Amino acid sequence: MDRRQFTKLALFASFLAPLGNTIKAAESDEQRKNLAKAASLKGHKAMMDAPGVKMVGNEKIAMLLYPGFYAPDLINPQFLFNAMMGAEVCLISPTDDLTPVECGGFSIVPTHRRSECPDKLDVLFVPGGATGTLEAMKNKPFIDFIKTKAADSKYITSVCTGSLLLGKAGLLKGKKATSHWTTLQLLQEFGAIPVKQRVVWDGNLITGGGVTAGIDFGLEVVAALRGKTYAQTIQLEAEYDPAPPYDSGSPEKADPFVRDNLKGIFAPLVENFRLAI
Amino acid sequence: MDRRQFTKLALFASFLAPLGNTIKAAESDEQRKNLAKAASLKGHKAMMDAPGVKMVGNEKIAMLLYPGFYAPDLINPQFLFNAMMGAEVCLISPTDDLTPVECGGFSIVPTHRRSECPDKLDVLFVPGGATGTLEAMKNKPFIDFIKTKAADSKYITSVCTGSLLLGKAGLLKGKKATSHWTTLQLLQEFGAIPVKQRVVWDGNLITGGGVTAGIDFGLEVVAALRGKTYAQTIQLEAEYDPAPPYDSGSPEKADPFVRDNLKGIFAPLVENFRLAI
Repeated sequence: MDRRQFTKLALFASFLAPLGNTIKAAESDEQRKNLAKAASLKGHKAMMDAPGVKMVGNEKIAMLLYPGFYAPDLINPQFLFNAMMGAEVCLISPTDDLTPVECGGFSIVPTHRRSECPDKLDVLFVPGGATGTLEAMKNKPFIDFIKTKAADSKYITSVCTGSLLLGKAGLLKGKKATSHWTTLQLLQEFGAIPVKQRVVWDGNLITGGGVTAGIDFGLEVVAALRGKTYAQTIQLEAEYDPAPPYDSGSPEKADPFVRDNLKGIFAPLVENFRLAI
Repeated sequence: MDRRQFTKLALFASFLAPLGNTIKAAESDEQRKNLAKAASLKGHKAMMDAPGVKMVGNEKIAMLLYPGFYAPDLINPQFLFNAMMGAEVCLISPTDDLTPVECGGFSIVPTHRRSECPDKLDVLFVPGGATGTLEAMKNKPFIDFIKTKAADSKYITSVCTGSLLLGKAGLLKGKKATSHWTTLQLLQEFGAIPVKQRVVWDGNLITGGGVTAGIDFGLEVVAALRGKTYAQTIQLEAEYDPAPPYDSGSPEKADPFVRDNLKGIFAPLVENFRLAI
């Protein structure tokens, strides 16, 4: 087969649906590779040309690490944000070095020292946690850093108890916001209006509920920055088609036995959060 | 108020529902702290005494890191496993040092050198990824390590394309298993029976679908190790009450435009996975 015949075949094949079967039917590894490459180019181009999709951007996203944060709060949004072509997703150290930051049984290496945190952020993100977040609430330089970065951030965001840190930085006054379900009512003490919803938007403030809410939060932010189609594409890459084995993910749905026990178990921590306000 | 009166109040208060309101109604910070502590003890005790709950265990769980793995694949299950009191959750380096391992824009520090990986594991876990997983498939010492550890593991598990690594290690022959939706059909090449389900169990093999399926996977494993009530409690702590902004999490549900583009975009990688089998 000569080059022109091959090119015709590749173009013809690239319009066949389902494309996957076409690739399987190809005779040689070389043909399969070229068909796959054609499919990839076609897929990228279709995305780029789709209405409402911003394929490439240059958002500056700063995700703040602090000792004892809850890793999933941050890692899930990070994965979704990192899938936005061209975005710069920075994990900011709480200090001026790149010492790994502990987050529940292991450590993550920051990508940027605190002093290297970009200015004029598109997204400032603060994860939650338990006792780590409590200590962070009492860490005045850290709270001041949040306040400073928020002042020139397009969006100010958090997941889980991270909103307590935003509140401590004075960023929730008069705003609707959410938090982990155990600390939701504490938001009132910051002058916020607590809303029991997985993701809450108020002006440029976007807050997510506890831990796994970071996935829903992350997809909503991607949609705002890059359009619905891009967010749907990342949702499919992340295969986010949840199938919880139990219906125990919120205090309203959980068995009262489970809910009351967990509420009790967390009561001292919640009380300490309240005292730290 | 003397000690006996206080104790009576604490006991009385601990039976009031909703307990949260009781704590709010207490008059002083000292009273609130003690009520919170009583609530915590009560909650722990109720969990410990609940039928079917194994409150404390000593499971040895090894989660294998390799360059370029998808962080959420591992971090979500790690969070859920780490919530099992007494479990030892180890992040195993792919080498014999503790050099941070890259995982999509940042790095994670292993907790154990490869030579320090415990024997007689309760759970061996392999995360997925994209080109990182492709390279891992071609890494014979790594595949041999998986085979060795699996030989005396109670459960052999993976999330996402991690099942391709289990397949390469010969661990899927004749077994039902799943993978990321883009690589599911490749499992046949390992002698496995591909099943399009979020979490698939076959004997001691437990495999999860793509990326975020790690949460559903993790909860099912916790239920197997510690009982349903424990899993429901961790689900509530993780506030896993999903609310995806779009219904685009599986190839069946996604818009065909989104699905076909993403399938095309991933076609070269999938073809390379196939060639590496």
